[in-house]
Amino acid sequence: MNHRILAAAFAASALAAPSFAQRDAPAAPAPVDATVAALRDAALTDDLAYDIVEGLTTEVGQRLAATEAEARARTWAVAKLTALGFKNVHVETYTMPVWLRGVETATVTAPFPHDLKLVALGNSGATPAAGVTLPVVIFKTYGDLANAPAGSLTGKIAYIGNAMEPTQDGSSYGAYGPARFVGPALAASKGAAAVVIRSIGTDHHRNPHTGGTNWPEGVKPIPAAALSVPDAELLERIARRGKPITMHLTLTPRFAGQGTSGNVIADVPGSDPGAGIVLIGGHLDSWDLGTGAIDDASGVAITTAAAKRIMDAGTPRRTIRVVWFGAEEPGGYGGKDYARVHGGEPHAAAGESDFGADRVWRFETNLPDSAKPVGDRLASALAPLGISRGAGVGGDGTDVGPTMALGVAAIDLNQSGIRYFDTHHTPDDVLDRIDPEQLRQNVAAWTAMLAIVANAPEDIGKVTPRK
Amino acid sequence: MNHRILAAAFAASALAAPSFAQRDAPAAPAPVDATVAALRDAALTDDLAYDIVEGLTTEVGQRLAATEAEARARTWAVAKLTALGFKNVHVETYTMPVWLRGVETATVTAPFPHDLKLVALGNSGATPAAGVTLPVVIFKTYGDLANAPAGSLTGKIAYIGNAMEPTQDGSSYGAYGPARFVGPALAASKGAAAVVIRSIGTDHHRNPHTGGTNWPEGVKPIPAAALSVPDAELLERIARRGKPITMHLTLTPRFAGQGTSGNVIADVPGSDPGAGIVLIGGHLDSWDLGTGAIDDASGVAITTAAAKRIMDAGTPRRTIRVVWFGAEEPGGYGGKDYARVHGGEPHAAAGESDFGADRVWRFETNLPDSAKPVGDRLASALAPLGISRGAGVGGDGTDVGPTMALGVAAIDLNQSGIRYFDTHHTPDDVLDRIDPEQLRQNVAAWTAMLAIVANAPEDIGKVTPRK
Repeated sequence: MNHRILAAAFAASALAAPSFAQRDAPAAPAPVDATVAALRDAALTDDLAYDIVEGLTTEVGQRLAATEAEARARTWAVAKLTALGFKNVHVETYTMPVWLRGVETATVTAPFPHDLKLVALGNSGATPAAGVTLPVVIFKTYGDLANAPAGSLTGKIAYIGNAMEPTQDGSSYGAYGPARFVGPALAASKGAAAVVIRSIGTDHHRNPHTGGTNWPEGVKPIPAAALSVPDAELLERIARRGKPITMHLTLTPRFAGQGTSGNVIADVPGSDPGAGIVLIGGHLDSWDLGTGAIDDASGVAITTAAAKRIMDAGTPRRTIRVVWFGAEEPGGYGGKDYARVHGGEPHAAAGESDFGADRVWRFETNLPDSAKPVGDRLASALAPLGISRGAGVGGDGTDVGPTMALGVAAIDLNQSGIRYFDTHHTPDDVLDRIDPEQLRQNVAAWTAMLAIVANAPEDIGKVTPRK
Repeated sequence: MNHRILAAAFAASALAAPSFAQRDAPAAPAPVDATVAALRDAALTDDLAYDIVEGLTTEVGQRLAATEAEARARTWAVAKLTALGFKNVHVETYTMPVWLRGVETATVTAPFPHDLKLVALGNSGATPAAGVTLPVVIFKTYGDLANAPAGSLTGKIAYIGNAMEPTQDGSSYGAYGPARFVGPALAASKGAAAVVIRSIGTDHHRNPHTGGTNWPEGVKPIPAAALSVPDAELLERIARRGKPITMHLTLTPRFAGQGTSGNVIADVPGSDPGAGIVLIGGHLDSWDLGTGAIDDASGVAITTAAAKRIMDAGTPRRTIRVVWFGAEEPGGYGGKDYARVHGGEPHAAAGESDFGADRVWRFETNLPDSAKPVGDRLASALAPLGISRGAGVGGDGTDVGPTMALGVAAIDLNQSGIRYFDTHHTPDDVLDRIDPEQLRQNVAAWTAMLAIVANAPEDIGKVTPRK
């Protein structure tokens, strides 16, 4: 499909639509401003976003939060954003606890010997250096674990399975993610010595998916790791033989005290400071297994490339602020710090890109009534990119969430989640997961959004945050 | 497509064909015997082959040659083949050099730090335990390496790239494989301290492809490893920045003296010992990274399931011998030992299954003129499975090759290679790479082949082996 042809046809029909209006016909779409359409369509040939992803993944690599790698990434980011012509480019640091991966090996020792592929979950506790050899209890689902009696897992390794499948909107992450988010803590509460989960992922490669796990205040972290999906399937097949399973598990991650992380901030100054900032961005940190191409070099790249296009087209009404947030993965430290430092400044709207690099298929907002026409213009301008207006209320995002919680309107541009959890948090999160054409569609969507929102004459005031 | 419908239609047309013969029309296909067709079509519901692959990969796992794992696999095989009712089930052992994997890590230390995913090649030499830190010289192809001056690689790590793409007939393995087969020895001859190659593979996951490399007599093995394809692409992208690359490389595999490997042999005795044995099989050993599902549990499973079907249908004219060969991967030791021990027995034909578990698309033979009608009947019986007769001469196979070299006719059933090198020799060679429907088509093809060849009334005498 040629986006330009579609865009031109749609723009023409939108302008002409009022004369065709009839009773019972859908409301006429808002006209698309020719400047917006031109900016959007020019972005379909964008190379800057790919250049940023290629650069970050090649010249920096993995960017684990609060490590020297993330610091190198900030240096790279400042140089890049400055070279691109952004204003007020600077780093804002904060401190946070540091967690570092160690040795991670697992072997089924009975009934059949197998070396397994697994990775520690973020915030995992450690086994002794020599590992532990313990019986394994199989829970095919998180729900099965929840039903296990108190104390029944003492001295055992709990395995938690799942049946995650790909979903367009990523909803299966919410459905199956708790096995990782809170499964280890739940198993610990029932006495488990360690936990291995089936990766929260939709691929079938022997690349496990890491990701953070949470420990309630006062709970001592136990060793917790994710098996690759094929290794989890193997463990379940072994279990079906009905013989006791024993595993030798070694995980030696460690908490390394407090470290420094930071946000990199860059502005496209607007002509009307009182109109509020449009806050966009993604996160600069990544997990340490891959090079964080889809999570989230693509997010900082898409939003930066779009902001650069608006900047080059002239001064927008509203300041556009691009933030490459730090330390999203271990707990959204960058987003919280941004809101702490900047929450008192006027913000008109916020949105982040942190769901890979595949096509945007939907947008959702929670714009105030005074800005309803802004949403209508977004619908018209994004439709030629294959993006429809969702029926829900916007407000997603770990990084912009703390700012949105202060009453700033949300603009969500939702990317397809079909492929995302094949790669999410695995060693496979590298440059070749980026489809340049889909990346360009993202840049076009963000460019159109910024052209409309940053220049909207309407007032965009406070909203009631989504729960 | 419903194979049964096609088979019935084809059989009817074949029987009727002579009455439609005209000048310039293609030769009428040979009729398909109703018993052959029934056996073939029944095999399209086969579950035994999958059961064997599932069992070997679950209850045994990786089966590195001449290790205790391969010995456990032989024990498993003898029990399985005996339970299935095969006769003369036994193990024939031989000794061979043992090579064992050790630590394998690599880090680019300059100009940008990156941990790389790599695996030692079979027969790789070792670095000191603490590793080596050396400059890297990039050769994008094996041809580029061949042009490097003598002595130019002294004290350096040579990187050898390739541009392998999938091919139906696997021919790209021949085109690009030399970078692994002989690239390390060539680099050593020019002074290289170590070699890393881009995996000989067609996937884009961070799972490197191992496989044997060869050292000429008298050449001391140097450390030699394969990077995953994305890691190789990263290294080439770094190289394009034009700055010197330094790598810290640790590989500690070792040669562990002589060990015991063996072939597992099982017969379906025929009624006419003088008519010669039909030798079929695959290899029981695997590389140690995955569980050897497509390489080559599927091969032993397909051929065993087909032989079992013929056995259950009554005594064939010729003895069918199924061999689960040992130690194919490190150098075809099992195939050589079989020919040494059994080469003097009369063999009518030989064929092996060792190219995964995807559909058979072609067959080729080098049957003697006396048995030309056998080839014609194969063409008719295999056509409904989507298998065409190739224009080439059969004779493939590391395991049956040494027997074919004695003048035994070859029957090659060629599987699609499109997906094969995505998984070949990687940690991803596990059960879920097996497509049960395609596996059944293989069993049907081998069943039809055996039904025809083992029962052919024609004499199948010696042939001139393919070069």
